[in-house]
Amino acid sequence: MAWNAWGDPALAKPLSDDVRNLLHTLLEIDTAAAPAPARDEVLVRPSALSGVHLRALTEIVGEEHVSVQDADRLPRAGGKSTPDLLRRRSTGPQDAPDAVVVPGTEEELRDVLALCAQQRIAVVPFGGGTSVVGGLDPVRGEFGAVLSLDLRRFDALLSFDEVSGEAVLGAGVTGPRAEELLGAHGFELGHYPQSFRYATIGGFAATRSSGQDSAGYGRFDEMVRGLRVVTPTGTLDLGRGPASAAGPDLRQLFLGSEGTLGVITAVRVRVHPVPAVRRYEAWRFPDFAAGAAALRAVEQQGTGPTVIRLSDETETAVNLAMTSKIGAPQEVSGCLAVTVFEGTEEQTAARHEATRRTMLAHGATSLGEEPARAWEHGRFDAPYLRDALLDNGALCETLETATDWSNLARLRADVTAALQGALQAGGSTSLVMCHISHVYPTGASLYFTVVGAQRGDAIAQWQAAKTAACDAIAAAGATITHHHAVGTDHRPWMEQEIGELGVAVLKAVKGVLDPVGILNPGKLIP
Amino acid sequence: MAWNAWGDPALAKPLSDDVRNLLHTLLEIDTAAAPAPARDEVLVRPSALSGVHLRALTEIVGEEHVSVQDADRLPRAGGKSTPDLLRRRSTGPQDAPDAVVVPGTEEELRDVLALCAQQRIAVVPFGGGTSVVGGLDPVRGEFGAVLSLDLRRFDALLSFDEVSGEAVLGAGVTGPRAEELLGAHGFELGHYPQSFRYATIGGFAATRSSGQDSAGYGRFDEMVRGLRVVTPTGTLDLGRGPASAAGPDLRQLFLGSEGTLGVITAVRVRVHPVPAVRRYEAWRFPDFAAGAAALRAVEQQGTGPTVIRLSDETETAVNLAMTSKIGAPQEVSGCLAVTVFEGTEEQTAARHEATRRTMLAHGATSLGEEPARAWEHGRFDAPYLRDALLDNGALCETLETATDWSNLARLRADVTAALQGALQAGGSTSLVMCHISHVYPTGASLYFTVVGAQRGDAIAQWQAAKTAACDAIAAAGATITHHHAVGTDHRPWMEQEIGELGVAVLKAVKGVLDPVGILNPGKLIP
Repeated sequence: MAWNAWGDPALAKPLSDDVRNLLHTLLEIDTAAAPAPARDEVLVRPSALSGVHLRALTEIVGEEHVSVQDADRLPRAGGKSTPDLLRRRSTGPQDAPDAVVVPGTEEELRDVLALCAQQRIAVVPFGGGTSVVGGLDPVRGEFGAVLSLDLRRFDALLSFDEVSGEAVLGAGVTGPRAEELLGAHGFELGHYPQSFRYATIGGFAATRSSGQDSAGYGRFDEMVRGLRVVTPTGTLDLGRGPASAAGPDLRQLFLGSEGTLGVITAVRVRVHPVPAVRRYEAWRFPDFAAGAAALRAVEQQGTGPTVIRLSDETETAVNLAMTSKIGAPQEVSGCLAVTVFEGTEEQTAARHEATRRTMLAHGATSLGEEPARAWEHGRFDAPYLRDALLDNGALCETLETATDWSNLARLRADVTAALQGALQAGGSTSLVMCHISHVYPTGASLYFTVVGAQRGDAIAQWQAAKTAACDAIAAAGATITHHHAVGTDHRPWMEQEIGELGVAVLKAVKGVLDPVGILNPGKLIP
Repeated sequence: MAWNAWGDPALAKPLSDDVRNLLHTLLEIDTAAAPAPARDEVLVRPSALSGVHLRALTEIVGEEHVSVQDADRLPRAGGKSTPDLLRRRSTGPQDAPDAVVVPGTEEELRDVLALCAQQRIAVVPFGGGTSVVGGLDPVRGEFGAVLSLDLRRFDALLSFDEVSGEAVLGAGVTGPRAEELLGAHGFELGHYPQSFRYATIGGFAATRSSGQDSAGYGRFDEMVRGLRVVTPTGTLDLGRGPASAAGPDLRQLFLGSEGTLGVITAVRVRVHPVPAVRRYEAWRFPDFAAGAAALRAVEQQGTGPTVIRLSDETETAVNLAMTSKIGAPQEVSGCLAVTVFEGTEEQTAARHEATRRTMLAHGATSLGEEPARAWEHGRFDAPYLRDALLDNGALCETLETATDWSNLARLRADVTAALQGALQAGGSTSLVMCHISHVYPTGASLYFTVVGAQRGDAIAQWQAAKTAACDAIAAAGATITHHHAVGTDHRPWMEQEIGELGVAVLKAVKGVLDPVGILNPGKLIP
């Protein structure tokens, strides 16, 4: 993963001249913006870790698994939100964790946490580094130093139960590695968030990740059967059997805990046989309302697509769902929807047919397979486009929420207006695009992509737009985040989400598990 | 609900002479046991509530909604476990709550809790009164008195959203009343636990209830979208949208909280249109292993039955699944399985056909519709049989658990051996029957029914058997309860279920919400 951009530099997607001209014409973007500094032009704040603490950490995990080098600290200085990436463009001293520690066993991890609690060192658990909500900010809080605790060595398939369709995976196993390990048994997890290529099993659990195949295989939290969590006060091993009435479901405290309550080391997940067949069909709807009604009917009737998505008119107009075609002439008028079906030959055919009938009944026109395959081909690539846009003076970011079906149109209108209004107030015309990518019987997610012109302090500019959007989301009674998690960025809205008493509950739980408060300070819990 | 037995006395099911003879011959049961005392023969411990506290409660809820009369206290003296029913057979002073309080609004409820916290009075929330795990025991703990807090006046459909398929129901709405209120809109909840006729929405939530249609519509906790909970320190309103990544899912702390963390007043649930069609088919498997393999395949392939159940050889031999035929000659050899399918005409046909093929491929023989309809006809009646057995000198009780598919055979063998061994040690030969009634992709529930002879102190006799069974469940790594909840009866196994640290977390949460500890003392939290 590049230290100052998304993913693999070899896969960067520079903008074509056509797109640059379009940005200039439409949004008055000055595409001749200054290029980002190279790594050796960047100053990193010196490590504040004392020699004594460094030696103590080295004794626990071994010399090769602790580093205070800038080259190791800088790539863990934050996640991959637009503010994160803009901060990486600063030549002035950049904040970064004071050391990177890579324990190899639960015992080592326990000892690291005990040392940090005793010596008052903050700890930021680190998986794939893909947070887009400030979940990895190296916040020292009241402590003298902060470590990046990298889980990459918890990288094994710990057990596999073919009969029950369950696997125990180490928290540091990445998305592709999980599928490789399970694939050897003919099984898969089927969890494909946009961060799939880098993010880890532990990160999926800690942030309640949702994958693009969620219509077929559920959210990650729905796949979890058990969790092992190491905390400064002990280890939890939660989850007995497929379902239970033995009191509150404590797994649900650690799912979404974002490293603030403990460090997830292993996750027992539901897995399924690799589907035999995959089918694709794309659709055109005259407008977003008709498309949303179709997606609602498909989900409420349970016709069973693995993927079902709907882009609004603006997103469709710029071909955003098909990354290879962005900037090309508009491919589809109205609103593009994409469906993918998986299973046995017979299941796939039945699911496709039932979904097709419902889509057609709601005003869809079939566009055949190709646009759906084009979506799949570029499904993990959108973040590369953002880097290219930032390189060209544009401001580009995404945010997401979810609400009930009856509240969806209002929520979309309110968030769009809030984003455009705030950016306009800062002198930037903007394009706000939206899609539905996760559906439930009672509601759906909305995912917004915003492109405007950088004007002055781009971080402050985005902060104003983000605040306006979050206020609109909270006012509409929607959730402040459907799958990006809370981190530092959504933390100001947590009290509105769960109430003062809900916050007190989280603090009480943290008080038991992390009494010194070393775990991921400044995230999630207000 | 009868004060000393299950349900409606008019529906009592006295045993036939054939069954009595069978019990005598097979299990050496003395069917001439003494009859249970009538209500006016029973002494109830006098109310310990002071006049001052009674007046204060009266001021909050009004005179007609507080009672210290035996006639109101005795029906709330406990739930409906076999030990509960055996205790009701004692003429000596029976324990009971000191008063029954029936608030009508959240404000009144808040004031009642505030008064109780201040005056140190324990509170047992009461819905339908159907707990079979001691969840309603009138435990005073360290307090001077204990109230039964009856939620019956929270009995409204508070809102209905046809578009989103959601309804907000008051906690005191019973199962039948919920279906009546929703039915007026053409919708249903589809939650049919054996306690359906009496139990309430709040109780379903507080105990993580699972209904007989769980294969089709999920567990109750899966239906819940939002909760309102009044606690001694404030009110929580949890659940935004259909799904969220905004931190830990705090709803999951109150689902299964059994009145120990707060009083649930309203639940937002997913509902669905009343299905157009229902189909039935029953099956015979040569043995339990073949049947279990079939149920696993059906669930893992997602063929979509609404109900799917499998009785073991012993349960099948006594026709236990068809309550109207118990004691009649054996109807089905091997193992009986029951399936029910619901949906549109087309969905129902497709689900039936796909399930049928899987069942046949796993060695099933079709028995046609009739045994499945017979099961449905008597689906809520088994508890009446227990009363008749207790009246005739038999010891009869049920217990349940769940585990992964790969662990199911071992768990069934271990629990059966534990029950029979413990009862035999007390001089009682026993019949242990088992069925699978809830299936998941990764595992299933096991539900055991035990019949033996009462020998001496029947409560102590059952306590020994129950302890042996629970130890076997914990040793096998299964959950101590799949849907009956914890109450007082499973509390000794909670630390094995969630660990010492898990218990500390629950205590910390309780410390925030109920710092004086008035809510349902002695239940759930060790």
